[in-house]
Amino acid sequence: MKNFVVHQLLEHALIAHPEQEIVSGNHRFTFREFHSRVLKLANSLKVHGVKKGTVVGVLDVNSHRFLEMHYALSMLGAVLHTINFRLAPEQMVYSMIHASDEWIFVSDVFAPAVKPVIPKFPKWVLMSDDTSQALPDAKQAFHYENLVNEGSENPISEAAEVKETDIFSIFYTTGTTGKPKGIPYEHKTILTGAIQLFHHLALHKYGARVSSRDVFMPLIPFFHIHAWGMAFFPIYLGAKLVLPEAADAAKQQAIIEKEKVSWLNMVPTQLQMLLEQKNFGHVKILTGGSPFASGIAKRAHDAGVNFSLIYGGSDQLATAISVVPENIEPDSAEALEWRRVGMRPLPLVEISIRDKQGNEVPHDGKTLGAVWVRSPWLPNGYFKEPEITKAHFIDGWFRTGDLGFFHPNHLLYVADREGDAIKSGGEWIPTGMLEAIISEHEAVAQVAVIPKKDEQWGQRPLAILKKRTDVSENALRDFLLSKVKEGKLAKFWIPDTFTFVDEIPLTSAGKLNKKVLRDQYSG
Amino acid sequence: MKNFVVHQLLEHALIAHPEQEIVSGNHRFTFREFHSRVLKLANSLKVHGVKKGTVVGVLDVNSHRFLEMHYALSMLGAVLHTINFRLAPEQMVYSMIHASDEWIFVSDVFAPAVKPVIPKFPKWVLMSDDTSQALPDAKQAFHYENLVNEGSENPISEAAEVKETDIFSIFYTTGTTGKPKGIPYEHKTILTGAIQLFHHLALHKYGARVSSRDVFMPLIPFFHIHAWGMAFFPIYLGAKLVLPEAADAAKQQAIIEKEKVSWLNMVPTQLQMLLEQKNFGHVKILTGGSPFASGIAKRAHDAGVNFSLIYGGSDQLATAISVVPENIEPDSAEALEWRRVGMRPLPLVEISIRDKQGNEVPHDGKTLGAVWVRSPWLPNGYFKEPEITKAHFIDGWFRTGDLGFFHPNHLLYVADREGDAIKSGGEWIPTGMLEAIISEHEAVAQVAVIPKKDEQWGQRPLAILKKRTDVSENALRDFLLSKVKEGKLAKFWIPDTFTFVDEIPLTSAGKLNKKVLRDQYSG
Repeated sequence: MKNFVVHQLLEHALIAHPEQEIVSGNHRFTFREFHSRVLKLANSLKVHGVKKGTVVGVLDVNSHRFLEMHYALSMLGAVLHTINFRLAPEQMVYSMIHASDEWIFVSDVFAPAVKPVIPKFPKWVLMSDDTSQALPDAKQAFHYENLVNEGSENPISEAAEVKETDIFSIFYTTGTTGKPKGIPYEHKTILTGAIQLFHHLALHKYGARVSSRDVFMPLIPFFHIHAWGMAFFPIYLGAKLVLPEAADAAKQQAIIEKEKVSWLNMVPTQLQMLLEQKNFGHVKILTGGSPFASGIAKRAHDAGVNFSLIYGGSDQLATAISVVPENIEPDSAEALEWRRVGMRPLPLVEISIRDKQGNEVPHDGKTLGAVWVRSPWLPNGYFKEPEITKAHFIDGWFRTGDLGFFHPNHLLYVADREGDAIKSGGEWIPTGMLEAIISEHEAVAQVAVIPKKDEQWGQRPLAILKKRTDVSENALRDFLLSKVKEGKLAKFWIPDTFTFVDEIPLTSAGKLNKKVLRDQYSG
Repeated sequence: MKNFVVHQLLEHALIAHPEQEIVSGNHRFTFREFHSRVLKLANSLKVHGVKKGTVVGVLDVNSHRFLEMHYALSMLGAVLHTINFRLAPEQMVYSMIHASDEWIFVSDVFAPAVKPVIPKFPKWVLMSDDTSQALPDAKQAFHYENLVNEGSENPISEAAEVKETDIFSIFYTTGTTGKPKGIPYEHKTILTGAIQLFHHLALHKYGARVSSRDVFMPLIPFFHIHAWGMAFFPIYLGAKLVLPEAADAAKQQAIIEKEKVSWLNMVPTQLQMLLEQKNFGHVKILTGGSPFASGIAKRAHDAGVNFSLIYGGSDQLATAISVVPENIEPDSAEALEWRRVGMRPLPLVEISIRDKQGNEVPHDGKTLGAVWVRSPWLPNGYFKEPEITKAHFIDGWFRTGDLGFFHPNHLLYVADREGDAIKSGGEWIPTGMLEAIISEHEAVAQVAVIPKKDEQWGQRPLAILKKRTDVSENALRDFLLSKVKEGKLAKFWIPDTFTFVDEIPLTSAGKLNKKVLRDQYSG
């Protein structure tokens, strides 16, 4: 065993932590029971022809069955396509065809949604407790639980043949422009990238520091980088894992209390919803995906939430986490602010911020540039997209498409997506950073800043807001002027227009959907 | 950069932590200055012909120069032979010839010792602050500091060509029987094995938990698995590293206070010496190498030392660390005892304890068997020793030569070396475990148990003791009988003979030298 392969985690867990628990909805399994189900499933799939390289799509919320699929397919050397159920239906089907899925596993929650595409795929498996439900009307169709029950517990001989450089999984970006891009990951790459994130968290004293005494619950879905690595880490560590299935915020809070969950991951939108729940708090949370407003940071902190932010993505995996610099008093207001704006690259990761000429920008806390990343867990590129791959993966580096700057202490701040930043009179306005400042106003529930065409300046910022309480445009303008005086932004960043809406559209990753907003408002 | 190569750590450190410090004796360097010295050294060595595959022996205590050699040779793809200076002189020279050292780097402390072998090696470098000292009378000889000063700071083009599967280093076992065995390690293997140890420590809440706020000082010499990974980890993490050079226990304590050292590694003998120092305590310590007596554990704990034990070795790297099981109250006496006797395998590591028929023994807290290990960082075998390799590395597993058992909670206890255990009337007596029990007696400073030939039983235990205070043989026998009643040992384990000595001989690794004792006493 000199290979870093996914099912190796389970072999170790079986020796070191056989009685540890996985909880999923009403189900509760020890690692030993879980291993037995995985082995039976793998044997059944083998009988039905799943083998090295077979691509299997799975469409489910975070459940024990989805988790089992990770390990059973790994043993067979098959490829797991974690289908992004938050994509638009035609994009979802596009990804299933593009990835060449031979089998589709679908949970009963999603079965109605995929009914129209049953004829496109020959082999279906219905994931449900209830094996009396009607199966998809396909060439072949099985009940998941029958596959598990019918499988033998023989060792899978193929498991020892799986190489760390074999492809383990493929998933698709939720790009707000164009069609989704697929990224295949090797066993070694996805494991090291995902698990290094948790090592890095464990090595920093303040924030969402993990330990073997934590109880983990991922609110990030498996289709997002295997729930940001949660499909692997608790099994690797021997810690209790709780899967929320399709719980809403109120139910999530009930599960947190019942199962003594101490560590969660989620996007800021989910955190905002949990902060509305009674008794929520005193947990550790990893979040990220967009600039994080100091208002949420403070509300979370006041609720006893120990948070860290992550910077990364589907096409680079984990790149950095926010930390309290070692020379800062951990309980200070400054420490809280650093945990929001100071990202430290993971060990082995190199980050380079470059100007238009390709030169490194100074680490001065303000000079924006394009963020480039080089790390041991970069993917080999986009699936069947040589041109797009060539444009993003250059000389071993990944051009992230983000804009950011380095603080003088070498911590990174990611200010915006290059495509979202506004060019006003030849100067960049980073909208992500601007949104974080606007949302510090207590009346602002959510805000998106997009460019509006302008004859004089080329582009000018337009703010689209969802209010928490009533507020006037002038009050917001005065608030931003006070922030200009504090040195938090330049005066020309203040939006020309404030538009109030009831709901701001979000992407499948829970981020502001600026494409939809631009189509509607940019003019 | 998709390779795990040693010098990659330094490239990352230069971006993320350029102002962090390395302290060595009177010297003090930032990571940036250290990187500059490494680069200049590498350029000089390149000019003088060091290239991919060149084997370079280094003979020094833990100093900044020895550390620099790790990174400079890595950039060139050369091989670092960390010479074990605690071997007997003829064994040391054997290792230098066996490894095919082309260059020998020696610090002024060790220069007199190697004078007789100067003609055996063509190229010498003297590592010293003082460049006016006479150089070794060899074909070629240089002052280390001149090499550094004369080197350019050009990037080393070879650095990008180094593969993670290239050999980074070779070092020799301190085997108490036979000649030393060399183990070559690939970049990836030595890095992952060494660094996973620290990840595992960080992931467990009690014991020598590491964080980025620690100041690290290795008392384990670099020739022992690169100071148990300390040549890599602080640079990987961006933490302050203090190198003790040749300090004795009193000086070590002075450095701990001055540099605010918070984390150290050492063998139990070194810990005993530090526990005698005034003001010593309130640090984290990783120790191991032999069964750890509860007396030392308690003394360390009372001094505020947070310790963890490691199980591993030169030919397997890190395999397990002691932990407090998650269901145990961390401040309890039970927790302290588990940190002494409960080793948890690192994630990804499999441990198998087998009886003579090769079957796994039950996890019952008592059934002894042979300890086998399978992990991603096993070496490929012993250098130029195909037969010994074949005898120890079997089907991907490493036969450690240790005897141990599993507790019912799946934690490992390593009781003895197979070769040291005593066979009395067909039953094993694990001497390491027995020594740990005997040394619980307050009058015992050190004890070694070896076999004595016996007509009736085959072998019987003989205890060789160094006293702390006066004690009779009968008092020791009564003490052990009381431990029999507590269920800590079987009555037939009690030694037939107790022999008192002034000093017990130790190996180069600070372990009891049982070979010497057996030659003298076993009869």
